[in-house]
Amino acid sequence: MYGLIEELYPICRSITGNGVRQTLERISRRVPLQIHEVPTGTQAFDWTVPREWNIEEAFIEDADGNRLIDFADHTLHVVSYSVPIDEVCTWDELRPHLHTLPDKPDWIPYRTSYYKDNWGFCLAHRDLDRFSEGPFRVCIRSSLTDGSLTYGETIVPGATDREFLFFNHVCHPSLGNDNLSGNVVMAELASRLRQRKRQPRFTYRFVWAPVTIGSITWLSRNKSIVPKIHAGLVAVLLGDAGPFHYKRTRTGSAEIDRVVELVLKEQGVAAKLLDFSPYGYDERQFNSPGIAAPVGRLTRTPNGEYEEYHSSADNLDFVQPQYLEESLRVLERVVTVLEGNMCYRNTAPDCEPQLGKRGLYGSTGGTQPKEREHAMLWVLSFSDTQHSLLEISESSGIDFDVVRAAADDLLAAGLLQPCTDE
Amino acid sequence: MYGLIEELYPICRSITGNGVRQTLERISRRVPLQIHEVPTGTQAFDWTVPREWNIEEAFIEDADGNRLIDFADHTLHVVSYSVPIDEVCTWDELRPHLHTLPDKPDWIPYRTSYYKDNWGFCLAHRDLDRFSEGPFRVCIRSSLTDGSLTYGETIVPGATDREFLFFNHVCHPSLGNDNLSGNVVMAELASRLRQRKRQPRFTYRFVWAPVTIGSITWLSRNKSIVPKIHAGLVAVLLGDAGPFHYKRTRTGSAEIDRVVELVLKEQGVAAKLLDFSPYGYDERQFNSPGIAAPVGRLTRTPNGEYEEYHSSADNLDFVQPQYLEESLRVLERVVTVLEGNMCYRNTAPDCEPQLGKRGLYGSTGGTQPKEREHAMLWVLSFSDTQHSLLEISESSGIDFDVVRAAADDLLAAGLLQPCTDE
Amino acid sequence: MYGLIEELYPICRSITGNGVRQTLERISRRVPLQIHEVPTGTQAFDWTVPREWNIEEAFIEDADGNRLIDFADHTLHVVSYSVPIDEVCTWDELRPHLHTLPDKPDWIPYRTSYYKDNWGFCLAHRDLDRFSEGPFRVCIRSSLTDGSLTYGETIVPGATDREFLFFNHVCHPSLGNDNLSGNVVMAELASRLRQRKRQPRFTYRFVWAPVTIGSITWLSRNKSIVPKIHAGLVAVLLGDAGPFHYKRTRTGSAEIDRVVELVLKEQGVAAKLLDFSPYGYDERQFNSPGIAAPVGRLTRTPNGEYEEYHSSADNLDFVQPQYLEESLRVLERVVTVLEGNMCYRNTAPDCEPQLGKRGLYGSTGGTQPKEREHAMLWVLSFSDTQHSLLEISESSGIDFDVVRAAADDLLAAGLLQPCTDE
Repeated sequence: MYGLIEELYPICRSITGNGVRQTLERISRRVPLQIHEVPTGTQAFDWTVPREWNIEEAFIEDADGNRLIDFADHTLHVVSYSVPIDEVCTWDELRPHLHTLPDKPDWIPYRTSYYKDNWGFCLAHRDLDRFSEGPFRVCIRSSLTDGSLTYGETIVPGATDREFLFFNHVCHPSLGNDNLSGNVVMAELASRLRQRKRQPRFTYRFVWAPVTIGSITWLSRNKSIVPKIHAGLVAVLLGDAGPFHYKRTRTGSAEIDRVVELVLKEQGVAAKLLDFSPYGYDERQFNSPGIAAPVGRLTRTPNGEYEEYHSSADNLDFVQPQYLEESLRVLERVVTVLEGNMCYRNTAPDCEPQLGKRGLYGSTGGTQPKEREHAMLWVLSFSDTQHSLLEISESSGIDFDVVRAAADDLLAAGLLQPCTDE
Repeated sequence: MYGLIEELYPICRSITGNGVRQTLERISRRVPLQIHEVPTGTQAFDWTVPREWNIEEAFIEDADGNRLIDFADHTLHVVSYSVPIDEVCTWDELRPHLHTLPDKPDWIPYRTSYYKDNWGFCLAHRDLDRFSEGPFRVCIRSSLTDGSLTYGETIVPGATDREFLFFNHVCHPSLGNDNLSGNVVMAELASRLRQRKRQPRFTYRFVWAPVTIGSITWLSRNKSIVPKIHAGLVAVLLGDAGPFHYKRTRTGSAEIDRVVELVLKEQGVAAKLLDFSPYGYDERQFNSPGIAAPVGRLTRTPNGEYEEYHSSADNLDFVQPQYLEESLRVLERVVTVLEGNMCYRNTAPDCEPQLGKRGLYGSTGGTQPKEREHAMLWVLSFSDTQHSLLEISESSGIDFDVVRAAADDLLAAGLLQPCTDE
Repeated sequence: MYGLIEELYPICRSITGNGVRQTLERISRRVPLQIHEVPTGTQAFDWTVPREWNIEEAFIEDADGNRLIDFADHTLHVVSYSVPIDEVCTWDELRPHLHTLPDKPDWIPYRTSYYKDNWGFCLAHRDLDRFSEGPFRVCIRSSLTDGSLTYGETIVPGATDREFLFFNHVCHPSLGNDNLSGNVVMAELASRLRQRKRQPRFTYRFVWAPVTIGSITWLSRNKSIVPKIHAGLVAVLLGDAGPFHYKRTRTGSAEIDRVVELVLKEQGVAAKLLDFSPYGYDERQFNSPGIAAPVGRLTRTPNGEYEEYHSSADNLDFVQPQYLEESLRVLERVVTVLEGNMCYRNTAPDCEPQLGKRGLYGSTGGTQPKEREHAMLWVLSFSDTQHSLLEISESSGIDFDVVRAAADDLLAAGLLQPCTDE
């Protein structure tokens, strides 16, 4: 996964343009993607797909032709969606177009101006020293033309058409955690699910798309899929050293909420649960009142809560392989628990069935039963169609896997029937 | 407000009689009142309007004609509703009719005997010393005759006939906090609401009536209004230095409960929330199972919890202008929040509407939105007809006024529709 | 009660056989029982009534004819349901059939093998010293034959056929707390209820039966009674010095749950409330999803949580008369509260009825009402058919008995009507 990040890091992505296309092309070497192009001007609910932005070159030179800033050095140097310009201007004219982080004088900030025609440069505050009185030549060779918005998706078919949707944004330029980390963890997870021999219970859909306009465009073209979304995760910011943060769905009572909470608790590491708020990433769109899909968000440190956020310090050092792997492991566990979290009907509900005669229970009475036997009693007692295995695991305090295994034994013995809720 | 208290303080009020009439007449100089007279003998649910009580003079003299107690000195000296008497009696005959507070030897207690024919005097325990062996002449020139029970009300019409009812009792004699404080704060609040240029959303009704029999009589004559009561407050005991105490409605889940809780929290001062109990003031009647109107109670220190309660120490010193003003401010804020606490439907519910193109959102991306922008996102996300602005303020932690202003901006932009629940 | 325990202690009980018959016969001298015999082979839901087990003699002798263990010394010496045997065997053959408690070298464990043909001896770990090299003669003169399973019950008829079921197990051999304590407390409680002059509101049923197969058999023969079970308790392990433990019904929201919680709180002693779990005694069967009867469990120290549990140390010293009496007192109180926990409709629901004119309220106003008067106001306010007296006691903080007495006064005054929910 880290290797793929290194490969993707230099590409200048934005919400449209060739950067996204190149990125999706590289990801599709890891897992086959279907690439969608949505033309400029397409209506997407209240929004319109914008013109496509591409950039070749950008710099500021002093009167002597010395390059004071050069886009070739870092993709963050240019405000994303800057209009083309090639002019000579004074310091006073230039200054409002220069963005820095005075508190972090070595870092270049990340800025965008998608929906208002403007241009600008971002640079380390310290580098303002390079600017003497002027005049300066400002050159941005960008283009804003009718084109398209690009996103990619891949589907792993399951036994039902009810979906588990994984969504991540793919529009940020050279920022490692936000969100190359999510892009590569999703690619790896999708690839692994595709390679599984046993068909999963749910259909898995992975979408790589630009933030906000991407999810809005995707939703406007896939509204018929929304009722099939059984669970979803915006899974992003997965490569830093921080603890996991799970942001709940808008109701806070979806199955995905309980599953992720259980999985994070299992990890035994500090993790934080956040109630839904309508600010963040694409979970905003999935949880809007007209969509209301049960989509939560899993990150490590959330957006805006680490100081490297949206700056050049969110780089290849900030993201580390072991954190990507840990994030992948957690997401695989989420899949496992959701897949296994069934609801059953006890087929012998009057009193306990006699487990001993089926070889499921120790035969010498008077001693305490083993954990597996306990788990069978719990599953039998609460398999009244109202309690899922996850809930049984929560009330009993018995590990989900032990509860799941007990249910498998009982299924094999004909003592349970799945509730056909799908 | 304090001036009006000074004016009302010397008047001897009871549950009927000229004291109440004089009091309502003075209040009506501040805000016009409609005065109602309900004849003695009128049935009011399980109760009957009692005979009217008036008193001219009352005293106890010793054998030498020295006045040991004189009603002219303090209205509390006579047990309210004492029957007329003019007799000579011994100390042993007199003693059971004398009420004192041995623990507070300088204070005169307040006692009543509305529903059992009796007579009595209240005096400072220390003044028992004035009584030698007797005999004593006991004289109470009172009258108990067919007359009427008097109450006053004023209405400020709103856009709907759903009402916000303010009820306060007006039957206590020279007691400052209980309840001249409530009488004058209500008068001031009613007067201010009348003077507002903009018509309020709710119709406001203020009632000044005797305690218990007054609210029972009012309810028995206005039962058709009960279903229109959207919210109500018994607002009394508002002039002492103690912290606010809000007593919830019987269910504890009415809108008025949440509104007052929010307002008291906003004040940032220690306030106490009490669950409903069927003892106290007229909230008992409004919350009885057959009425079940959502009426809470706001006081500062509650009845029975300050030592001056129901004694001559609840006087013009115990009540102070700054506390009356603070109480008025809190009640005005309750009105403001209840008026503004609407529920909306997001008219662009599929994903977020594009706020930027409507000038409602900052245009340079990559930075954190401002509080007002946050508030707009919250309102849009939760305007699914199920959440009021107050609830949105509570879950977001954003001040109610900011949420309200954000909703106003969204309304102006056509992005919200009010839920016509009235 | 302790005398009856002493009488029952030496009897060798098991889940079937003459030990249970003798035990029920002795209990029926205290309270008349109806004895039921259910033949071997009878189907009971998923179970089958097993063969009847009886035992005459059992011992192990060394080569010199010295008895190393003798069933005549203690009923626990033989694994319950041991098949008959009379053989000579080596130490290696014998050892797997010997059960000891190495941590408690002086105690004999209690072991059973009801559903797998086997045999064994239980002995103090210290007594393994008696065994030299062997050979040993092993003799168990037991019989496993077609017979029947025996249980006893007694019914105290009430005004309705809705039942309060008390269930206790009667299958353990010489173990004092588990469960002779329950057997005798139930006998005493049943006897006292029978002797009451006033017919109770509920019908009381007491069942003495073997654990697990007993409750399963009882339920399979009485499924039509299940819907009539208004409340139930498995009341066992009632003679040790430990604190009370109440295990809730499966939903945790049955009336019996609230009643027992109130009663234990009233005791003012440390008591513990446990959520339902499907391991324990016969509450497992009553709470299985197909039965779902509201049956909780009251014990002192629960099964498995005292070290004497299922060993010879659970003897006549471990159980003490004062704890039996305290348990009986608590259970009688549970009966009293459940009997008195009615739900009413206030017949004068519009405002408060005038209590004073009915002699129910103090006549001199201005002072605080007494607790009984307070209780009447609470009952009137919450007698809206939705709140039981127990709930009113809980919300008001007024003792249940005071609330009950207030309701009786109001009933006498015609101010309440019972909700005929039965």
